[in-house]
Amino acid sequence: MTQGNSAADSRQGPRLQPFQPPQGDLAILAGSGNPVFAQKIANGLGVRLTPCQAQIFSEGNVFVRILENVRGRDTFIVQGVHQPVNDNFVELLFWIDALKRASAQQITAVIPYFSYAKGDKKDEPRVSIRARVCADAIEAAGADRVLTMDLHSPQIQGFFSVPVDHLYARAVICEHIKSLGIDNLVICSPDAGFAKSAAAFANLLGVPVVIGNKTRPDHSEQAEILEVIGQVAGRNVLMVDDFTITGGSLCSMAEVLKQRGAEDIYAAVSHGVLSKGAADRIQNSVIRKMFMTDTIEAPIEPLCEKMDIISVAPLFAQAIRSIHDRTSVSMLFPDDKQT
Amino acid sequence: MTQGNSAADSRQGPRLQPFQPPQGDLAILAGSGNPVFAQKIANGLGVRLTPCQAQIFSEGNVFVRILENVRGRDTFIVQGVHQPVNDNFVELLFWIDALKRASAQQITAVIPYFSYAKGDKKDEPRVSIRARVCADAIEAAGADRVLTMDLHSPQIQGFFSVPVDHLYARAVICEHIKSLGIDNLVICSPDAGFAKSAAAFANLLGVPVVIGNKTRPDHSEQAEILEVIGQVAGRNVLMVDDFTITGGSLCSMAEVLKQRGAEDIYAAVSHGVLSKGAADRIQNSVIRKMFMTDTIEAPIEPLCEKMDIISVAPLFAQAIRSIHDRTSVSMLFPDDKQT
Amino acid sequence: MTQGNSAADSRQGPRLQPFQPPQGDLAILAGSGNPVFAQKIANGLGVRLTPCQAQIFSEGNVFVRILENVRGRDTFIVQGVHQPVNDNFVELLFWIDALKRASAQQITAVIPYFSYAKGDKKDEPRVSIRARVCADAIEAAGADRVLTMDLHSPQIQGFFSVPVDHLYARAVICEHIKSLGIDNLVICSPDAGFAKSAAAFANLLGVPVVIGNKTRPDHSEQAEILEVIGQVAGRNVLMVDDFTITGGSLCSMAEVLKQRGAEDIYAAVSHGVLSKGAADRIQNSVIRKMFMTDTIEAPIEPLCEKMDIISVAPLFAQAIRSIHDRTSVSMLFPDDKQT
Amino acid sequence: MTQGNSAADSRQGPRLQPFQPPQGDLAILAGSGNPVFAQKIANGLGVRLTPCQAQIFSEGNVFVRILENVRGRDTFIVQGVHQPVNDNFVELLFWIDALKRASAQQITAVIPYFSYAKGDKKDEPRVSIRARVCADAIEAAGADRVLTMDLHSPQIQGFFSVPVDHLYARAVICEHIKSLGIDNLVICSPDAGFAKSAAAFANLLGVPVVIGNKTRPDHSEQAEILEVIGQVAGRNVLMVDDFTITGGSLCSMAEVLKQRGAEDIYAAVSHGVLSKGAADRIQNSVIRKMFMTDTIEAPIEPLCEKMDIISVAPLFAQAIRSIHDRTSVSMLFPDDKQT
Amino acid sequence: MTQGNSAADSRQGPRLQPFQPPQGDLAILAGSGNPVFAQKIANGLGVRLTPCQAQIFSEGNVFVRILENVRGRDTFIVQGVHQPVNDNFVELLFWIDALKRASAQQITAVIPYFSYAKGDKKDEPRVSIRARVCADAIEAAGADRVLTMDLHSPQIQGFFSVPVDHLYARAVICEHIKSLGIDNLVICSPDAGFAKSAAAFANLLGVPVVIGNKTRPDHSEQAEILEVIGQVAGRNVLMVDDFTITGGSLCSMAEVLKQRGAEDIYAAVSHGVLSKGAADRIQNSVIRKMFMTDTIEAPIEPLCEKMDIISVAPLFAQAIRSIHDRTSVSMLFPDDKQT
Amino acid sequence: MTQGNSAADSRQGPRLQPFQPPQGDLAILAGSGNPVFAQKIANGLGVRLTPCQAQIFSEGNVFVRILENVRGRDTFIVQGVHQPVNDNFVELLFWIDALKRASAQQITAVIPYFSYAKGDKKDEPRVSIRARVCADAIEAAGADRVLTMDLHSPQIQGFFSVPVDHLYARAVICEHIKSLGIDNLVICSPDAGFAKSAAAFANLLGVPVVIGNKTRPDHSEQAEILEVIGQVAGRNVLMVDDFTITGGSLCSMAEVLKQRGAEDIYAAVSHGVLSKGAADRIQNSVIRKMFMTDTIEAPIEPLCEKMDIISVAPLFAQAIRSIHDRTSVSMLFPDDKQT
Repeated sequence: MTQGNSAADSRQGPRLQPFQPPQGDLAILAGSGNPVFAQKIANGLGVRLTPCQAQIFSEGNVFVRILENVRGRDTFIVQGVHQPVNDNFVELLFWIDALKRASAQQITAVIPYFSYAKGDKKDEPRVSIRARVCADAIEAAGADRVLTMDLHSPQIQGFFSVPVDHLYARAVICEHIKSLGIDNLVICSPDAGFAKSAAAFANLLGVPVVIGNKTRPDHSEQAEILEVIGQVAGRNVLMVDDFTITGGSLCSMAEVLKQRGAEDIYAAVSHGVLSKGAADRIQNSVIRKMFMTDTIEAPIEPLCEKMDIISVAPLFAQAIRSIHDRTSVSMLFPDDKQT
Repeated sequence: MTQGNSAADSRQGPRLQPFQPPQGDLAILAGSGNPVFAQKIANGLGVRLTPCQAQIFSEGNVFVRILENVRGRDTFIVQGVHQPVNDNFVELLFWIDALKRASAQQITAVIPYFSYAKGDKKDEPRVSIRARVCADAIEAAGADRVLTMDLHSPQIQGFFSVPVDHLYARAVICEHIKSLGIDNLVICSPDAGFAKSAAAFANLLGVPVVIGNKTRPDHSEQAEILEVIGQVAGRNVLMVDDFTITGGSLCSMAEVLKQRGAEDIYAAVSHGVLSKGAADRIQNSVIRKMFMTDTIEAPIEPLCEKMDIISVAPLFAQAIRSIHDRTSVSMLFPDDKQT
Repeated sequence: MTQGNSAADSRQGPRLQPFQPPQGDLAILAGSGNPVFAQKIANGLGVRLTPCQAQIFSEGNVFVRILENVRGRDTFIVQGVHQPVNDNFVELLFWIDALKRASAQQITAVIPYFSYAKGDKKDEPRVSIRARVCADAIEAAGADRVLTMDLHSPQIQGFFSVPVDHLYARAVICEHIKSLGIDNLVICSPDAGFAKSAAAFANLLGVPVVIGNKTRPDHSEQAEILEVIGQVAGRNVLMVDDFTITGGSLCSMAEVLKQRGAEDIYAAVSHGVLSKGAADRIQNSVIRKMFMTDTIEAPIEPLCEKMDIISVAPLFAQAIRSIHDRTSVSMLFPDDKQT
Repeated sequence: MTQGNSAADSRQGPRLQPFQPPQGDLAILAGSGNPVFAQKIANGLGVRLTPCQAQIFSEGNVFVRILENVRGRDTFIVQGVHQPVNDNFVELLFWIDALKRASAQQITAVIPYFSYAKGDKKDEPRVSIRARVCADAIEAAGADRVLTMDLHSPQIQGFFSVPVDHLYARAVICEHIKSLGIDNLVICSPDAGFAKSAAAFANLLGVPVVIGNKTRPDHSEQAEILEVIGQVAGRNVLMVDDFTITGGSLCSMAEVLKQRGAEDIYAAVSHGVLSKGAADRIQNSVIRKMFMTDTIEAPIEPLCEKMDIISVAPLFAQAIRSIHDRTSVSMLFPDDKQT
Repeated sequence: MTQGNSAADSRQGPRLQPFQPPQGDLAILAGSGNPVFAQKIANGLGVRLTPCQAQIFSEGNVFVRILENVRGRDTFIVQGVHQPVNDNFVELLFWIDALKRASAQQITAVIPYFSYAKGDKKDEPRVSIRARVCADAIEAAGADRVLTMDLHSPQIQGFFSVPVDHLYARAVICEHIKSLGIDNLVICSPDAGFAKSAAAFANLLGVPVVIGNKTRPDHSEQAEILEVIGQVAGRNVLMVDDFTITGGSLCSMAEVLKQRGAEDIYAAVSHGVLSKGAADRIQNSVIRKMFMTDTIEAPIEPLCEKMDIISVAPLFAQAIRSIHDRTSVSMLFPDDKQT
Repeated sequence: MTQGNSAADSRQGPRLQPFQPPQGDLAILAGSGNPVFAQKIANGLGVRLTPCQAQIFSEGNVFVRILENVRGRDTFIVQGVHQPVNDNFVELLFWIDALKRASAQQITAVIPYFSYAKGDKKDEPRVSIRARVCADAIEAAGADRVLTMDLHSPQIQGFFSVPVDHLYARAVICEHIKSLGIDNLVICSPDAGFAKSAAAFANLLGVPVVIGNKTRPDHSEQAEILEVIGQVAGRNVLMVDDFTITGGSLCSMAEVLKQRGAEDIYAAVSHGVLSKGAADRIQNSVIRKMFMTDTIEAPIEPLCEKMDIISVAPLFAQAIRSIHDRTSVSMLFPDDKQT
């Protein structure tokens, strides 16, 4: 079997954008998890938010209602699955069902952060693969597609039958880093599991990568040691990860980097989950600055001084525009190879 | 969790109708259950019926055929599930499949009366929930949506995964009642189960409501007594119900109302099922006039003199227009709160 | 790729019947379509019928109820889909759902005759493939398996996802024919479509086969002519078919056979559907005797003198025993190759 | 169509309990919503709880793990959907998935209280039918059956494709009421919607029923008036309902009953949801005593002195025993007709 | 039940083509099974092929990639299921999934030859109904419709839930035959199973039909004899069949026809599968010319001199045009009745 | 939310093995992909293989047939998805369907190597997630569960809705390595992606781990450099990976290790796919010995001298025994934590 017809066609001139019949008007709805982020997306798209309402009653039930006709419209419900995780997740299901029963033309679940992506495998006996349970429920409720960012593992796209547009915060974060003009930079992955993604950061920035790794050198009962693979002495370091909850791993890693002679230490994470105590821990650490996106707009803890928020709402707006206009979403990442 | 963005948006000016891309042409098909009703709908919409054909062969098999190309069209098959109930139901399934395999763009099952809605719960051991069985078969055959009227209980919408547009005959019936100028009117629900709906009638007409109730006052072996809760002496009464089969309950209720001093007694039902003997029973009762809609166009019994038919075909036509144009169906009921 | 392990194993001695854990007790239920046939099956199995009840109400709705606990039992609902076809079919769906919700261990739909099997293809534009619609509805209602006889085409097994045990009346009919000691017999298929099955009859009886065929010899406007392919002069003929509705084709074929010099003419069909007028037509034809099974226990027309019924209830009883005991059903047809 | 075979069989002698092959051992698991209730059930069945563990991590994710092999076992996960409603619901989904992937033979979701049952219809435009969304998610996760109590409407059974065993607290509550020896008792339904169920209570206790109803007598702008239909002067009254959240409706009803001359006023609800302030409101009302079951073992508010808890854990234990042994569950309610 | 509304409407004048909203641009993709055929289709439609690529890696895995944005486009993947059958089939599944996840508006699987259509029934115990397995996998992958030609049996359309457009090579082949001006022609079906289709050929050409049949005249152990039903002496014969693999049956049939006095013998098959040795066998036979279509563009064996290829690519192009423009596909066969 | 009931129960004594009702007899079937491996499993279980047959016809179609009754039996079809990958995969689907339609009690797809597990994500635009397509097809065909070994990523379990038992070759390989008594050993992962698994090997053997990593140090156009993270000078090295196709990566890694001063170099892979040229490459490399399991029993290339096969058939036999007896499969890995 040989290449189909790619060679032949690449000799032809540039292709005109194909004709696409118009879709129903865009409708962007804000769930209660991301009202500000949704407003930023709407602003980016130059549309107003479709009026809608979510409530939790005193017995704990979520209730949702769309306040305007959405028949035949191309709808995007912006509702992340972050703290309060289960309230937000169940609300998402109800929005999807309400849109379906209201005869929306297409329903895209826009999930800036999908917390249950972490539950993606059966790594011990008799546990649930929670990300698949959530994916099945989202599809059963009636979602036609999903738009999300930096899932914990890329395999999770395969948990869905419907198309998933998977955005990367990488390019946006790297733009910001470049604008800071830090020289002699090296990227650090805090563990082996994130090494591949860290290399993609390094590639975008044109800098080397080092890897943190926990080892137990001689099989003794001795505790695990956090090592750094690669040279950091005299260099500025940017630690990268997909999310941080307590900030603990990043702070520990930063300590080790300092001991190995690193200069300024920065951190960048896509999703700033930030449970109680995380902001203090970061503030008191050797980390100089921590960057994160606004996928989680209201973390449990208020942000500390060291934290800088980089908005990915414009990227989501572009992706929604592409989905609506049916142009390529992958073209939003021209310099980046998806991993 | 607070209100999403409803407050903000309600301050904005009136919203222009959003752009909706055109659908394929309407195609209205008449199943053998409602040919006249379907023609009225088509007239109301200003379109001709799409030629099609249904037959029952001598061995009892139903056969359906569409006689014109319907690829890419927005199709509505009008086929009620009334007597002969099972022939009509199976024919409906075949229409849906035929439309699906003929590549219709959208298939709406228009079911003016859905007789199996009555089988909506497991109220004794080891019976079937027949309405769910029918809903599953309709969806398995390929229906994209359902348009129906006055289901026996509103929960039945939830038996379907696809959107259901549920019409109410109430507004049409009340318009007619108002035009008659009956004064000193009171609405009567013949049993406790219909009380909520009767109150909605009363609300639309601005009159009080009374309720019939069967009681067995002192737990003796004595038979049930039909009571009237509320005052009817000297008043004209309009009994309301979703359907009547034999007319028996309405006639008994009318007797009791007369005994309690009621003046003229009327009845109004959405669906005039009318089994054998019903017309005679009504004709010979103290009921002065009985109103019903034309959802069942050919009841088993010919109508009697006392019966007046109020057509809901214009309402179905409006709803189909709304579905096709993707405007709000609930706006057809501006003064009525759905129950 | 070569044969798996069949050669090796065939050298081993006869295999003991494998251990099968016991199933819940058999429960045979009689739908309203085949009460006598179901009783014969129960007698053959030495069990009583499980008490149950089906009703049609005055508005035309079917209602079913099982009158005894069936939790954990291995249930067989005997309900053919024959005249009144749609009433019987919808009743079958409700039985299956009632058994499912009553927690039966396994539900087998026993359908002695499945009338909609004839609707097995889209042989003209914009019709329904009715047999698939019915199969989907049966599976959606919850049937675990199907037991039926002589479907119109063997491909229909593939319309079901669940296992289908497909019985053949052939062996039973041929036993009966052999007992009659007719000599000089030839099998006749009334048309090309049934030729393959007719050959299987001929094979079981060790006699030749002839085929009826309608031709239009020279493309003129002249009507079709019914021809006989093969020699029948001086021979006794047994026409075979899967069903007859009006008896018309068989009577015409018999006329032609007589003209070609055939002696005694017999007919045998699996399913005697027999619409109005069929019995008279057979009685007045040159057919000497017509054999059919009891899959349809109450045809529309009373039987005529020339008709002999051969019961296949014992065969169904054996098949149910095999399904329940999990022994091979195909072993019931040792001399016959399924087609 | 006539009765199938019920008449014939009722002449036969009493039927022996049919043979049922043994199931895998019972395994009762306690979700974090009902640990005490689950322990009571286990005690009632004479089995220990299967060790298992549920956790909420600091980022808000629920995690579940079964600590013992459950392959081939007949499993019951006891997890109500009450406050915190969404945490409990999502945890239930994960339990079901964990049991499925751990190869349980059968998975029964035991949901003593299912809060989202209230979201059973589309009673205003563009809302979700939340009970159906939940039912679909429960089935998608892999539940084989559901055991629950006093759903808000009986139609919700039809939202599930899998069998639902629906228990009634009525018999247990009435037993308790009888034991109190209150004479001159009358049952009161606080609104028309619960009238049918209230009548079933009255029937079990052999006492009359009265109904509360909100009316607006002359279509003026005047507020709704709460009326009592029936006589309560000089009688002791037991108000009944399926649940109470704030206690408000019951307390208002009690006021009206007092004004109408009622003596002692009691209340009984199946599910004591009890949001903040409810206990105080009850304590300070004219209600003398309020009875509720233990389906919600830890309401938000601590109980007040006036409240008495009647355990339905023994009833759930009996039902689980019946499901496991495959005996009839409806036989647990010999004197009660399900509604 | 009578005819719906066909009579009334047939009196109306000719119907204008209904308005159809525009679809997304056509995108024709060539799988590795039919690159030349796909190019012919594209040429016929006046569009270029959408660049794409299929590969088999050294470990045997198929990999596919679409090289251009196809969001919102009306896509047709041309990929037959012929030798290497399983590679082609699995590649087809991956194309469908890739198109689905790339957000194509509509995905039509264009399968010029579907080899597993032969596995359409369970004709012996414990085999698979392979055509249904394949249909389910194609639907599970996400195909919206199927376009194919001359399936082994028409029932296979019913194995799919999605619409199937089923083309016939007959009209194209008959056009060609007519152009040859062979006189005194007779059509021959090589076995009883194809007789019905052969008659359709005869009908289109206005010539008689004869049938080959294997019989075993006196039930002895003697081998089967191939007979010809009908007269062929002195006539030119065109044998027709849906496919040929080894050419064996056609060559044997030709021998018998010669013995019966036939003049020139031709053969025409829709699908020229042609396993090893087939071309030699044909070349050395008494067959004068063999016609086949180009549904299989690269048979295992190179073609021999006696073989003539008739392209059906224009017919596929027309059908794709009709599907895209939503005009009737059955109108492509005005003189032919589908069987 | 706190721990459920784990604490309480852990105080109880050891739990007796729960009662498990007997299953139908084991039936092990050998697909044509692994006949020898299946025979080893059968030997390990002390049962004979169930006679069955697979064939590829000359046109390329796979055909399967089970030669013995399997109704009610607990069936395991052993059929890996390796070269010829697509033939083996499609054959697997047909086996599953054949077992389903033959009424097997339970169908376990035993897939020693699942080649398409590598296609587990959408790592570039417009490709298929092939592992999910395959998982869906396996489930659509009717598999009840899957037993497999060392999938490329653990997330693939979540592509299946049915339970997956996932075996690890690690323990078996490590047993073998220990028996060789190699001292001064270090484990090497050839890339960052396998680092986590390599650490698990190291943990089982009580030795350190090093990691290979490709870097491009200064963002120049210069080629990637393969580095070793960690110390290997003077040590014996065991490279580990889940599979090798060409052997290329392992040989390159071995070269680098030699350059870094490593002594003897070994390699161990779970699945020896071995495409053309792989054996020669290994034989001519600095690798001293290469270990692999027998999940692929007939690689394309004959094995070379340096290769040693370690059988995992006994492990599969144990797992099948556990599944059949419903004991814990995870207990087969007491010393290993699943990753």
